[in-house]
Amino acid sequence: MIERHRTTQRMSQATVHRGVAYFSGQVGSDPEAGVTDQTAQALSKIDDLLAMVGSDRRNLLGANIWLSDISTFDQMNTAWDDWVPEGAAPVRATVESRLAHAHWKVEIMVWAAVPDAPA
Amino acid sequence: MIERHRTTQRMSQATVHRGVAYFSGQVGSDPEAGVTDQTAQALSKIDDLLAMVGSDRRNLLGANIWLSDISTFDQMNTAWDDWVPEGAAPVRATVESRLAHAHWKVEIMVWAAVPDAPA
Amino acid sequence: MIERHRTTQRMSQATVHRGVAYFSGQVGSDPEAGVTDQTAQALSKIDDLLAMVGSDRRNLLGANIWLSDISTFDQMNTAWDDWVPEGAAPVRATVESRLAHAHWKVEIMVWAAVPDAPA
Repeated sequence: MIERHRTTQRMSQATVHRGVAYFSGQVGSDPEAGVTDQTAQALSKIDDLLAMVGSDRRNLLGANIWLSDISTFDQMNTAWDDWVPEGAAPVRATVESRLAHAHWKVEIMVWAAVPDAPA
Repeated sequence: MIERHRTTQRMSQATVHRGVAYFSGQVGSDPEAGVTDQTAQALSKIDDLLAMVGSDRRNLLGANIWLSDISTFDQMNTAWDDWVPEGAAPVRATVESRLAHAHWKVEIMVWAAVPDAPA
Repeated sequence: MIERHRTTQRMSQATVHRGVAYFSGQVGSDPEAGVTDQTAQALSKIDDLLAMVGSDRRNLLGANIWLSDISTFDQMNTAWDDWVPEGAAPVRATVESRLAHAHWKVEIMVWAAVPDAPA
């Protein structure tokens, strides 16, 4: 009934239930990169996770975005706006919070529909 | 399968999927107003968004509330408690985070059931 | 259509809709306790709430965790890793935010599947 992906003792990277996929917060892959690049890296990981559950970025329902410094809001949006497919933007809230590791500047947690999932 | 409302390149104000509506974080409309008034303004916007998807505040499932200063918790609650219909309160979590623009003191992100939506 | 539990004017501790249960952010029970103990206390409350809606911790879909001091990340994880059933970890995001009352060091908001719920 619940599908889980990349599950460790601490967390799964994705859970799927009744046609909705939930994903753990994703950060960048290069700790030295700036906010725009770390955002693009996190979104690239989200693309991989979406594919893993049989979905893609056109099916996003919502996103929570945390920036370690809210003054980087525009830099994050540069990568975000570029990534979102035209006409398919999810709901969103972006706030400032320190993240688990100081070198990560942005964390993105999304949820998405899984097309063709059974009711 | 996914219904979207007020969609820009960056975000939709609402997405609806399998009977659940998700909404973007809402802030006040008057940057000079205090927390109580900005909360009432954000909730008024949420009323409009709920109506747009065919729902209303009696169908709220949950809310995330961010305050730029957690010491304004009681001021936010004054407007919140007044707005919630008796017996229909959603789940909630309220924490402190700086918001995207310094003049906004509160941001509220809710999700709600859409009555009569198909399974 | 929406089931609510422990509902006050301000919030419900749980709402259930279409097989998914949402819970309010839970904090510890001892304001003097450290992060590990407050995490265990919050998770114990979540066990009670899950039972109340006819679910349990093996059905968790996701979790948002807020720490008032992100440097206590490992201390929180000690209690968290111990509590999560093997192979059933939810998705998760953990960030730093001040909480509503200064003596609470961690707040946890989860959502879960309710087995055997009607479509």
